[in-house]
Amino acid sequence: MSTAIAVNGAAGRMGRTVIETASERDDVEVVVGFHATDAGDIGGVPVVESDGVASALAEHDVDAVVDFSTPEAALGIVDACIAADVALVVGTTGFDAEGFDALEAASDEIPVLKATNFSRGIQVLLRTVTEAVGALDGYDLELMETHHNDKVDAPSGTANTILETVQDERDVEPVYGREGHAPRDEDEIGVFARRAGDIRGEHELVLAGNDEVLSLSHRAEDRGVFAAGALDAAGWLVDRGDGWHEFDDVIDED
Amino acid sequence: MSTAIAVNGAAGRMGRTVIETASERDDVEVVVGFHATDAGDIGGVPVVESDGVASALAEHDVDAVVDFSTPEAALGIVDACIAADVALVVGTTGFDAEGFDALEAASDEIPVLKATNFSRGIQVLLRTVTEAVGALDGYDLELMETHHNDKVDAPSGTANTILETVQDERDVEPVYGREGHAPRDEDEIGVFARRAGDIRGEHELVLAGNDEVLSLSHRAEDRGVFAAGALDAAGWLVDRGDGWHEFDDVIDED
Amino acid sequence: MSTAIAVNGAAGRMGRTVIETASERDDVEVVVGFHATDAGDIGGVPVVESDGVASALAEHDVDAVVDFSTPEAALGIVDACIAADVALVVGTTGFDAEGFDALEAASDEIPVLKATNFSRGIQVLLRTVTEAVGALDGYDLELMETHHNDKVDAPSGTANTILETVQDERDVEPVYGREGHAPRDEDEIGVFARRAGDIRGEHELVLAGNDEVLSLSHRAEDRGVFAAGALDAAGWLVDRGDGWHEFDDVIDED
Amino acid sequence: MSTAIAVNGAAGRMGRTVIETASERDDVEVVVGFHATDAGDIGGVPVVESDGVASALAEHDVDAVVDFSTPEAALGIVDACIAADVALVVGTTGFDAEGFDALEAASDEIPVLKATNFSRGIQVLLRTVTEAVGALDGYDLELMETHHNDKVDAPSGTANTILETVQDERDVEPVYGREGHAPRDEDEIGVFARRAGDIRGEHELVLAGNDEVLSLSHRAEDRGVFAAGALDAAGWLVDRGDGWHEFDDVIDED
Repeated sequence: MSTAIAVNGAAGRMGRTVIETASERDDVEVVVGFHATDAGDIGGVPVVESDGVASALAEHDVDAVVDFSTPEAALGIVDACIAADVALVVGTTGFDAEGFDALEAASDEIPVLKATNFSRGIQVLLRTVTEAVGALDGYDLELMETHHNDKVDAPSGTANTILETVQDERDVEPVYGREGHAPRDEDEIGVFARRAGDIRGEHELVLAGNDEVLSLSHRAEDRGVFAAGALDAAGWLVDRGDGWHEFDDVIDED
Repeated sequence: MSTAIAVNGAAGRMGRTVIETASERDDVEVVVGFHATDAGDIGGVPVVESDGVASALAEHDVDAVVDFSTPEAALGIVDACIAADVALVVGTTGFDAEGFDALEAASDEIPVLKATNFSRGIQVLLRTVTEAVGALDGYDLELMETHHNDKVDAPSGTANTILETVQDERDVEPVYGREGHAPRDEDEIGVFARRAGDIRGEHELVLAGNDEVLSLSHRAEDRGVFAAGALDAAGWLVDRGDGWHEFDDVIDED
Repeated sequence: MSTAIAVNGAAGRMGRTVIETASERDDVEVVVGFHATDAGDIGGVPVVESDGVASALAEHDVDAVVDFSTPEAALGIVDACIAADVALVVGTTGFDAEGFDALEAASDEIPVLKATNFSRGIQVLLRTVTEAVGALDGYDLELMETHHNDKVDAPSGTANTILETVQDERDVEPVYGREGHAPRDEDEIGVFARRAGDIRGEHELVLAGNDEVLSLSHRAEDRGVFAAGALDAAGWLVDRGDGWHEFDDVIDED
Repeated sequence: MSTAIAVNGAAGRMGRTVIETASERDDVEVVVGFHATDAGDIGGVPVVESDGVASALAEHDVDAVVDFSTPEAALGIVDACIAADVALVVGTTGFDAEGFDALEAASDEIPVLKATNFSRGIQVLLRTVTEAVGALDGYDLELMETHHNDKVDAPSGTANTILETVQDERDVEPVYGREGHAPRDEDEIGVFARRAGDIRGEHELVLAGNDEVLSLSHRAEDRGVFAAGALDAAGWLVDRGDGWHEFDDVIDED
């Protein structure tokens, strides 16, 4: 039986991609969408405005909500999710501390899974980063990401996650550029953000020392990869109990 | 105190590199070399011919032999190593089944460590391969290596080791080229060998599926990396007991 | 004023992409589509079957036809294009000698432009290949392409075009795989086809020698790049005279 | 007949590499070396101190001087080169305006060739950069270089040369890092310097737009590539007249 999904932020770029991706799968079905403004139907899915969320969750017998919206819009549906007892997958980024607290509080009552990147490949990349940084003590580390030219923040959220994963293994300080006299400190890690064309998203960690170079890299071909991962997470989450869940766990158990 | 090393195959390309690499380190010292033919001194190290191995091991108080020679030359010193109770690090490749048996039999009496590649980076690459292939079920795998234009065998020994590591996780069959009508079977893995210029050695495993690509790759900048690893292995091996040891263990314990 | 385009093979994957790409541009408009079978409207564009081509060209005041179909379907509309005096952009591949002759004959009466790849980047890649292969005499050449796992032919048409471009500069023979004892001949070029996941299309030529490596590579992020190039070609072609035109010329003059 | 070469800066890292590289060639012979301090013989070549340069040039019948030293040491031999009428190949970098003027003045009397990078591959890379940047109008450009961790300046001299080559074709301003809110201006070019391990030297220019990415890259495997190019330049230069010569010309005429 397929999992009944509601998409929050249905008219956004990721929301639309989730709806399109789900339409090609049998294990999930998007039954309703939510959006801050009137958006009509999207891909055959009815989209209701914010004030109709609570009743729509019940009416459409929703199992899980997949959220790619804004912190405000995400937090705006939390109470309705708790009331309807549906699982919540959060792909929205940019929450402040208060927002995080609200999501964590919700996880006392419903299953919540929040991730900055729903790609399986990125998740596995993080595992290999932990493995390699831990084993190649003393090798220099450099991190580079590349994205399309209209991405305004740098480095990417995923690059920051890779950096934190590195820092769990080794005490390195990021430098975001080098120009002029710039001797490398052995405890630094270069973190570079290329912006060009329509590039979907690339991340590479280089480990070099001892006359050799190890490179661990990932490339997204299409943002469909993130939608697919979020739908996988939703299908997995409906079978878990209340609490705070990690996308990393989704990979091993599916 | 430094480990006293004898190099078998001292006048070969790798033997010379081991002698040169050791000369820049404090933890190991090459005290004597062996070679099938008269080779004089190499880098200040006296080199003796095969019939002088037994007496030289005793005379120079050797702790470990590092061997980069031929299967015949490697097997030719095994009895002397056992008699002198020295550890044996074998970097020579191409042993037949009988040769392997002889090395294994030796490991009942002395510590033996045999590896096809003494790079730490390759060893860590293999760990990430295991991790990634295990986690990304259903992703297509393609393996490529690149070496200098006078390498006559394909694929490289290291590529074969990567392939075996993949096959420990998944049942895939290698194909070594594609031309004409060549539909991809989901249980195949492309294995490609580029040969060009002076390239020291590159290996890449690509895992692709679900609109994303994960790439795990390694590049040797210089064959000194292999000499360094063999010397690390020798220093580590002299503190182990008799038996068959793996290079992978050297990495975690140093 | 925008160029009025008819798409032959409108219901195919590339045909649909051309229609979608054109809908976001002001300089071209797809006014009608042709397809071998009844396909209804596609993206708001009326699609007519083969027997209606001649009348549709006149009725819709078509300036140029963009063809991504089959050799049979492409040749099936040539007479109608000549009769209506419209320019013809051919992206279909796989013509036999007789088919090529028919297209060349058509170019006596209308402007014809045929290309195997409508990417500007690939076109520029070819120029850099000519430049580099000509200048780096004696360097070893290796060519690799990577495509999605349902591409059944190898190597790709574009890889073959790169190979021909190389061969215009140097007399090299392709080898499509290496296994076992495979010494490299200095006049050979390795040509490798990786097949994995959803990869849109990558091509790389490596030139190595003299302790250095030059790499010229291209990656398509989306097949929209080919549709965009074909539409550019159509807009350019309507201002040319009868004859056989090259996509390379489109790049410099726009 | 082989060209008789004197190496200025003979005891430096590049000086030694030039002597070693020349020893494996028949077309050039290093007959004497110069160094600021007493350096004895290097690779069998007698090395004389600065005050002996003038007499050594005559005594050893030198055809050309290859200089990899310091601006001071390079300018210190110019008068002796003019007096002895020998060609001068300058690989030293870091001259101030006055130093440049002195070299240019020398070129009125002897053949002078100055380059920041004697790799043929880099020279050809520059040609492809000119070709591609000129043809792909509107594509975003990003430049990255990677070098060993003890290189203290950033970006590399070669990266700056690539940047200047780009700027000859298009008016772009370099940015050397991106962090935080960093929207990309269409007239900017990211220029990034990675520093890690023993990496010999990599440079990559990426051109992205229109759903495609073109990458032009070069990697040095060993500094021998620069020595070989400088020796090629010396052999070529002795057959030219007085004046200022470019390394780019060496490639086509050899």
